[in-house]
Amino acid sequence: MSSNFKRIALVGRYRQDSILDTLTQLCDWLENEHYEVKLESQTAQALKQAERGLSMDKLCQETDLIIVLGGDGSFLGVACSAAEHQLPVLGINHGRLGFLTDIHPSHCISEVAKVLAGDYLEEKRFLLETILMDTRVHESALNDVVLSPGPLPHMIEFEIYINAEFVCRQRADGLIIATPTGSTAYALSGGGPILSPDLEAIVLVPMFPHTLSSRPIVIDSRQSIKIALTLGNEGSAQLSCDGRARIPLAAGSHFEIQRKKQELRLIHPKHYHYFETLRSKLGWTHKPEKPSF
Amino acid sequence: MSSNFKRIALVGRYRQDSILDTLTQLCDWLENEHYEVKLESQTAQALKQAERGLSMDKLCQETDLIIVLGGDGSFLGVACSAAEHQLPVLGINHGRLGFLTDIHPSHCISEVAKVLAGDYLEEKRFLLETILMDTRVHESALNDVVLSPGPLPHMIEFEIYINAEFVCRQRADGLIIATPTGSTAYALSGGGPILSPDLEAIVLVPMFPHTLSSRPIVIDSRQSIKIALTLGNEGSAQLSCDGRARIPLAAGSHFEIQRKKQELRLIHPKHYHYFETLRSKLGWTHKPEKPSF
Amino acid sequence: MSSNFKRIALVGRYRQDSILDTLTQLCDWLENEHYEVKLESQTAQALKQAERGLSMDKLCQETDLIIVLGGDGSFLGVACSAAEHQLPVLGINHGRLGFLTDIHPSHCISEVAKVLAGDYLEEKRFLLETILMDTRVHESALNDVVLSPGPLPHMIEFEIYINAEFVCRQRADGLIIATPTGSTAYALSGGGPILSPDLEAIVLVPMFPHTLSSRPIVIDSRQSIKIALTLGNEGSAQLSCDGRARIPLAAGSHFEIQRKKQELRLIHPKHYHYFETLRSKLGWTHKPEKPSF
Amino acid sequence: MSSNFKRIALVGRYRQDSILDTLTQLCDWLENEHYEVKLESQTAQALKQAERGLSMDKLCQETDLIIVLGGDGSFLGVACSAAEHQLPVLGINHGRLGFLTDIHPSHCISEVAKVLAGDYLEEKRFLLETILMDTRVHESALNDVVLSPGPLPHMIEFEIYINAEFVCRQRADGLIIATPTGSTAYALSGGGPILSPDLEAIVLVPMFPHTLSSRPIVIDSRQSIKIALTLGNEGSAQLSCDGRARIPLAAGSHFEIQRKKQELRLIHPKHYHYFETLRSKLGWTHKPEKPSF
Repeated sequence: MSSNFKRIALVGRYRQDSILDTLTQLCDWLENEHYEVKLESQTAQALKQAERGLSMDKLCQETDLIIVLGGDGSFLGVACSAAEHQLPVLGINHGRLGFLTDIHPSHCISEVAKVLAGDYLEEKRFLLETILMDTRVHESALNDVVLSPGPLPHMIEFEIYINAEFVCRQRADGLIIATPTGSTAYALSGGGPILSPDLEAIVLVPMFPHTLSSRPIVIDSRQSIKIALTLGNEGSAQLSCDGRARIPLAAGSHFEIQRKKQELRLIHPKHYHYFETLRSKLGWTHKPEKPSF
Repeated sequence: MSSNFKRIALVGRYRQDSILDTLTQLCDWLENEHYEVKLESQTAQALKQAERGLSMDKLCQETDLIIVLGGDGSFLGVACSAAEHQLPVLGINHGRLGFLTDIHPSHCISEVAKVLAGDYLEEKRFLLETILMDTRVHESALNDVVLSPGPLPHMIEFEIYINAEFVCRQRADGLIIATPTGSTAYALSGGGPILSPDLEAIVLVPMFPHTLSSRPIVIDSRQSIKIALTLGNEGSAQLSCDGRARIPLAAGSHFEIQRKKQELRLIHPKHYHYFETLRSKLGWTHKPEKPSF
Repeated sequence: MSSNFKRIALVGRYRQDSILDTLTQLCDWLENEHYEVKLESQTAQALKQAERGLSMDKLCQETDLIIVLGGDGSFLGVACSAAEHQLPVLGINHGRLGFLTDIHPSHCISEVAKVLAGDYLEEKRFLLETILMDTRVHESALNDVVLSPGPLPHMIEFEIYINAEFVCRQRADGLIIATPTGSTAYALSGGGPILSPDLEAIVLVPMFPHTLSSRPIVIDSRQSIKIALTLGNEGSAQLSCDGRARIPLAAGSHFEIQRKKQELRLIHPKHYHYFETLRSKLGWTHKPEKPSF
Repeated sequence: MSSNFKRIALVGRYRQDSILDTLTQLCDWLENEHYEVKLESQTAQALKQAERGLSMDKLCQETDLIIVLGGDGSFLGVACSAAEHQLPVLGINHGRLGFLTDIHPSHCISEVAKVLAGDYLEEKRFLLETILMDTRVHESALNDVVLSPGPLPHMIEFEIYINAEFVCRQRADGLIIATPTGSTAYALSGGGPILSPDLEAIVLVPMFPHTLSSRPIVIDSRQSIKIALTLGNEGSAQLSCDGRARIPLAAGSHFEIQRKKQELRLIHPKHYHYFETLRSKLGWTHKPEKPSF
């Protein structure tokens, strides 16, 4: 059994010595095993091989598999490009389990070896695409799109439309629109539900809504969402995608969010179980040795 | 334009004089218009025509459309039988808008006339089917299945499996498993999200969970859910479906929940909008005269 | 330094072998050290010295200090009697830290020795007194008074009055009225806030309220609370105090809750810190080695 | 019966024509009745009598009663100065009931007349005083002190100490520290409990905490709170008091919050009931015509 992964891209942006060690080890091992190793610019710099560095775009064109070292944050930085090029991504964490980076650095080589030998699970995760109607700017997000006010937490007012039907006008600190992948990130702190990762659904979580009967709403991922800032807003609002891309929004502007066509190809080791990660991250009880039935 | 609704069943169990008036009016009008009117037993009694009363089962076999007068609770009492016989159901409320009964009694005749003329929307809503593994008892629910303790609110302990994969072991007052239809009923009071009515998803809402990081989980409706009461439970637990059918459960017993094959055919007037009902029921702001974009 | 604790009562009702060991050890050590040891009936039975067993009432009359072995539940069973007799209580847990039982069994002898030598903290915790207006029955609770429906979770309707002023009419699964001590128990699962243990306040937590804008209300402990079940209630409701004393309530009945005059004298080892227990029980981060300022 | 209110200050900053009308009416009536009327600068400008305008400080020195016209926001702008000068404040809303402004403009003259005749309730509300330890800057707040990040919602990390005892280290979007008065404002949207207005307590509400077991904590108002931003924070944080005074905070800085000595003297008409306002603002059911007991 063997995979078609010959050209391997390494991305390890997080500035931590422990990551650098894992990165060096992995890079050496891969080259030893005659894989073609590509390095992202910042990663190359960190390895003091700046001359080998490639832009994310170039990297995506010349590779079969991306390996990200770091936390879920590092993974997010790569996810959109990878999805656009339909490249599979494997995540190695820096010692603390992530939802997206599920290989522990201490087992890095052996786990990567298995993946390269074709022994892995591939999971599809969908992304959100946000289109600003004024400027036609497009932005992608694997986790979430967050509408928030400017500097100080103050109420903003906006209207939500689903499939062009009016849902509600809200006054709130903001709104989180999350994928199943993002449902265990920021949206969870905001009181949103956990969406099973394979569920074709999007959740809208109001942030500190003025109307106490506001609740998270879960809709089909194929429905289109439109958010309009009302004209009454004093001061500005802004939009962020996966915590990046702070796009300022004027009162009266609106944007649309829909499921992105290209999905992320997320690679897991064979022994991966979503709910095991969930239990570990949320501090739930462990799996019992034998089930109760 | 005309519908195929010739034989109309009337169900109006809620003991309120105002319902009786509407019921009498509607019955008279239908017979005047030469529809074949069938009466459910209790409804017939209320109308002092006990001799015309039919069991729900017989009613379902001899009718084209069921009209329910009452609240959402009355509707629930009819939903499972109607779904099993693939019969469409129309709901007339008793003055207070329901999620399922969306025709106001004061417009009863004119709205029913339109529906009978073929001028209506038909929506599909799925139900849950619960199977007790010990006894093979089957129960259906349009809103929710609730696992709860006996007389006093005390912690019960149970394990959740989704598609045979272990999710978690919880200690809680109970668990609500709700359809999108039920997501705006009991599950909402319990902190669950609103699921769009067309979403093929089920939500599991833990009731007063001991582990504070427990959260509602939304899964695909095609996944099978298994709940097992652990052996450690002192005292009994019980299961209810749409608030009916209190099935006692012993420690160590388990049950499965899955999407029922037959869906409910829910009839609405043409002007029906789900989010309008939602706004009205939850006290959200009204639709603005013109959108903000 | 020495305390005035000469006559020591032991209560260890929880049926676990590990508790029995600690109990035997402690009993032997105390008698060796010439303390007068009293045993509660069930405890005496567990130690196979049934003839020495005393009722709680008698025990309280003839002792200077009560030591409870078990969990917080065991402690609750003793708290009301102890408070009425103004007897200090020390709690030894069965291996898992409790909010009330904060001595680990493996340090039992050394910690008890310190307490008996006068090296301890005494904290006052207030209790609630519930008076049923129909029957003049009185019940005390250290943690909480819970109003709940009968067998199946169904809505009950009740009115809340504070200092004879109408607060609200609620439809809910029930109502938790908790002391600061109880705020980290059942009320916390129900979404209530944590009340600092020295705060003279009571929290009312609605259980699964029908009105989504219902929220926990915190009031001064000197205010009197009256709860009236409305006449519209179908079926019964019931009242429990610290999970005991299930008092049935008829529609239209009402009860009052007020701060009990006699407080509980809770004994801690000197190194006790409330927030340390809280962090440990709720899985919060540990105290940093040095503060950030 | 007559009050000692001879010199009346008017403050009506909210830019709305309806307020201007009420303001003009009230001003004319007061002068007609031979009260000495003082106008705050912006209010004087709005009335086109700019030359009569006084600074808040001067206003407070030369007056017996402040009447604020507007919403709760306008009231907050006056509260701190009024408290420092121990001046009573009466609030007239702009048509929509506020928690602090409880006289409807259409009854303005008759209600004010009653208050001036001595027919009123005076309630004390305490404020918070925040002291920045680096700069010794002091700021007051009637509602709340909010610690929040800079422009984009991102996690900040901080430690909470109560009476110099370490409580917890949190990663969150921020922290709301609210008085009972503020407990029905921003803190309520954030999931905080309602604190009875006379309760000597402060609530700390974590905003979108990373640790899901974080909960609002209610402490005695006489306890001192210290918040320290850890050194690990990337980017800045900021502090706001009643939505004003955005004070930037560097990583490693800390501040203290305590109950302000001078209380606000809040004037209500005689028929004022706190819970009536609460029911009205939160959309709860009305007071029944007769109680259920």
